[in-house]
This record gives sequence, structure tokens and C-alpha cells, in this order.
Amino acid sequence: MLSIAHLGPAGTYAEMAALTYARHQAPAPEFQLRAFRSIPITLQAVAAGEADVAVVPVENSVEGSVSATLDTLWQLEPLQIQQALILPIAHALISTAEQLDQIRVVQSHPQALAQCQTWLQTYLPQAQLIAMNSTSEALQHIQDQPGMAAIASRRAAELYQLPILAFPINDSPENCTRFWVVSPHPSPGGAMTSLALSLRRNEPGALVQPLQVLSERHLNMSRIESRPTKRSLGEYLFFIDLEANAQSPEVQAALKRIEALTEHLRFLGSYDVVDLSRSAT
Amino acid sequence: MLSIAHLGPAGTYAEMAALTYARHQAPAPEFQLRAFRSIPITLQAVAAGEADVAVVPVENSVEGSVSATLDTLWQLEPLQIQQALILPIAHALISTAEQLDQIRVVQSHPQALAQCQTWLQTYLPQAQLIAMNSTSEALQHIQDQPGMAAIASRRAAELYQLPILAFPINDSPENCTRFWVVSPHPSPGGAMTSLALSLRRNEPGALVQPLQVLSERHLNMSRIESRPTKRSLGEYLFFIDLEANAQSPEVQAALKRIEALTEHLRFLGSYDVVDLSRSAT
Repeated sequence: MLSIAHLGPAGTYAEMAALTYARHQAPAPEFQLRAFRSIPITLQAVAAGEADVAVVPVENSVEGSVSATLDTLWQLEPLQIQQALILPIAHALISTAEQLDQIRVVQSHPQALAQCQTWLQTYLPQAQLIAMNSTSEALQHIQDQPGMAAIASRRAAELYQLPILAFPINDSPENCTRFWVVSPHPSPGGAMTSLALSLRRNEPGALVQPLQVLSERHLNMSRIESRPTKRSLGEYLFFIDLEANAQSPEVQAALKRIEALTEHLRFLGSYDVVDLSRSAT
Repeated sequence: MLSIAHLGPAGTYAEMAALTYARHQAPAPEFQLRAFRSIPITLQAVAAGEADVAVVPVENSVEGSVSATLDTLWQLEPLQIQQALILPIAHALISTAEQLDQIRVVQSHPQALAQCQTWLQTYLPQAQLIAMNSTSEALQHIQDQPGMAAIASRRAAELYQLPILAFPINDSPENCTRFWVVSPHPSPGGAMTSLALSLRRNEPGALVQPLQVLSERHLNMSRIESRPTKRSLGEYLFFIDLEANAQSPEVQAALKRIEALTEHLRFLGSYDVVDLSRSAT
């Protein structure tokens, strides 16, 4: 039985992504979903063998990177990306209130609050916004509290049998989130390759050199993201996505060159992307 | 009278940075602090002429960029950076509880919670973490609630006359935050230059070209940060810091070349850095 770790509790977008991943496998596996209470703990569970794969959010089209995923993957060397999954994200305002003007508090995951900020400023300018560990956790405190609302998926509202007061409320209609499926297995190869690297200290132009290696080989970088090393202000890790298969000789050669130019190169995986943001509603 | 906008209410680290900025001016100005309830609103107030300058956090040594600052500055074209200010950040656990084991809930700004996460997991593993709009806002609900604690500065504890239960609790002893002082005036020039740029769609290697312009001119890029354009997943803005004065002919020439290679180039300013992270405690 395939056990799939995700940020819980039940009803999160990560759980939806985990379900979608399981249903897109051929042949369809028997599977079990396992909810964990934070993204680092979800990834650590898979690194420790407590679950087979983790499905974790990497990036949202409006709010950008999910720092907890990048920072944890950098540290958990054995984990590699098996697949990327892009899902459309449509948020619902969920509350037992009869009308919007009863609502004093709106709670959700910080990314979901941020993705609805214009809607919230327009319709609930006086509401206090409270950030929770997950969209589902936000639902657990609103039953019988008409002054409170949560932002989560329609599926979560059904699961917790709570009414939807407004839908969709995300500011961007094209809101979608990219998830990575990771496990301790070597990645399968595919259309994308993801790397992370740290640079030797105080070398001027140190970042441009690895980027030039990619550019000279016509390897297109679709994304670069910096994160602090947490050693000192001004030192960064870089996360890079390439539109290329790491099993090709060009990428192999580029990785070898880049390794010589960096302090540490972390190969995160080479994998295919399943994009459901254009098909679903 | 110089009016200085910052994220409020009184007692935030942004207010501390605003005070520090005012005290480092020569001659010492008469000034007035003005607290606003979010970073975008703080910056919009200055763009609209309601305050003279804003002091806003840009980046923390542990948690990385402050997205709200970057995203808002990209949009508010008339604002330029006048100065950078690096302050040490030491967090206190503030509560009317007698002992740690009474505490059920810890609330603070999400960046402060993240900067203390190892301490919280060690000493308060069962506590619920609630994210607020600012560290000071977190203090306003804990009076007479020994089950609750807030994370904020020692100065904030004094201001609100609340007891400190533990100090310092930040995971990194070198925790510091960089602030930018912005106003609608042209920036003064100085040791650093900051840019933001968007790329034309779907051009392979589009990012490497502007970086090469910098590298060829031996202009050292100390930081690059990507943020989503919010148009569609996979499209980014890039924020770049250079260790060079924009008034120099080399930087002027580089900016002209980069402008031709990008969709939009936003000059954020050229300014000096006041680093207080090594002197204060």
C-alpha cells in the first residue's frame, strides 16, 4: 500500500494534490493518505521512512515560493523530486454567518489570506485576519461561531459540513499552485530538472558563473529563487529550475561544471510536470 | 517636522528602525512617527504624500525577503530608496504566565514566529501558534491571559508594561533585519544600487543576459530575489542589489543596456547602508 504524506488535517489543498497524484498513477495503486501538521514534519516523515512519498506545495502563482518546502528539502539530502503537479486553486469563504457583515474574524493559512487580500479589503475591511498552520485547521474553530469565517477549498467545506458564504474569492482567477512529489528514490528523469546551490563566500560575481554555464549550453532556466543561508545576512542559497532532462549528456556536463563553481550543489531531481490548471474548474 | 511612516502599532521592530533612522540624521530633525496597519498601506501613505518617508523591512537574515515590501515597491514607481538600515533583532517571549507550562497559545508576526521556531518546538511544543499583523498587535490580547504569550521586542514589553518570560528566544544569535527608508525624492546615491526588472515572455535565457551585463562590467550583485508577476505561474520579477553607486558611469551604462534587454526596469534607488547589527546588543 502506497502511503502518501501531506500537510493536514484532511481538506487541505495539499491533501487534494496527494489524492490527485494517487489517481493519476497507472496502474491505480492502493493508497493511504497520512496528514502531518507542518511541511517540514511531512518531509521528515518521508526521509525517515514513515511514509513512501510526500506531496508538498512549492510555489503559488500569486504568493510565490513556499519557503518551508525549499528550506527543508535543502537539508534532507536523500529526498528527490519524482513529479510536479500544478493544480488550480479556488478559495471559498466558509462561515455559519448569515451575512458578510456579521464576520469579525477571518482565519486561514497565510498564503490563502494573501491570495484573497483584495477581496478581503473590499468586502471585509474591518475583519481581523488570523493566520493558521493550514486552511483546514482554520475550519476547526468556526462551527457555531457566526462571527468567524475561514478560507479553504469547497471540498474542505463539504468535508467539515460547513456552509460556503462566498466563492470564488481569490483575487487572481488564474490562481494555481505547483506541488512536488518527493521520495527517497532516485528521480525518474523528465522535462524539468531542479537544483539548489550555495556559493563560496565573498566571491564577486559568484552567481553569474553557474548561470553562464547553463546559458552557454542553451539550457533554459525557467526559475531562480534565493533563500537565506541563515548563516549571515547577505548569504543565499539558490533554487534553479531547468527545462531539461538531467539524464541528457548536456545537463550532466553542465552539472559537473557547476559543481566545481559552487560550495555545495544539491540535485533535487529530474521529473515530468502534470498540469491540471487548464483543465479543471 | 519630518513625518516617518512605519508598520504599527507602537513597539514594532519597524518603529524601532524608524526611531533609529531619525536619530542618525544630522542635524537631528524634529520628527513624528506615524503607525500604519500593514506594509503596503505604509508605503502607499508616503506615495500619497501623507508622510515624508517610510521605514520598511526588506529582508531578515533567517526568514528572507519581506514579500509585501518588494511587491508594493514594484508598483509604487515614484518611491526611491534613500538609505538602508541593518538592525539586530532579539525576540522576547512576553506573557503574564508564571511559568512556561501555563502557555497554550503564542502569537506574533509570522516572521517572528519563524525566527523562533526551534525554541518554540523545544520549550512550547504543544502551544498553538497564531500569526498576527505585527509583533505589537500580538501584545494587545495577552494582558490578564496567562495562557497566552506574544513574541516581540523587549522595548515593546516595556511600552505595554508586560513581563518578559524568556529572552532572547531567536534561534539564530545573529538574527538581523535590513530596512529600507523610502520617499518620493530621487535617491541620494551611495554604496548600493537596487533594481527590479521583468522579462519579456518566453525568451529562453532572458535572465542571464542582464546578469552578464553586470558581470562584464565587474559590478558585483550581492543579492537576487524572484517574485511572481502574478500574471501566470512561471513568470517572475527579479530584485537585484548591486555593490555600486548608480551615479557612476559604469552603472549608468549597465542600466541603459539592461533596460534594452528587459520588459520593464524599475530603478529602486542608490543609497548608503547604516549597519548597526555589529554594535548594539
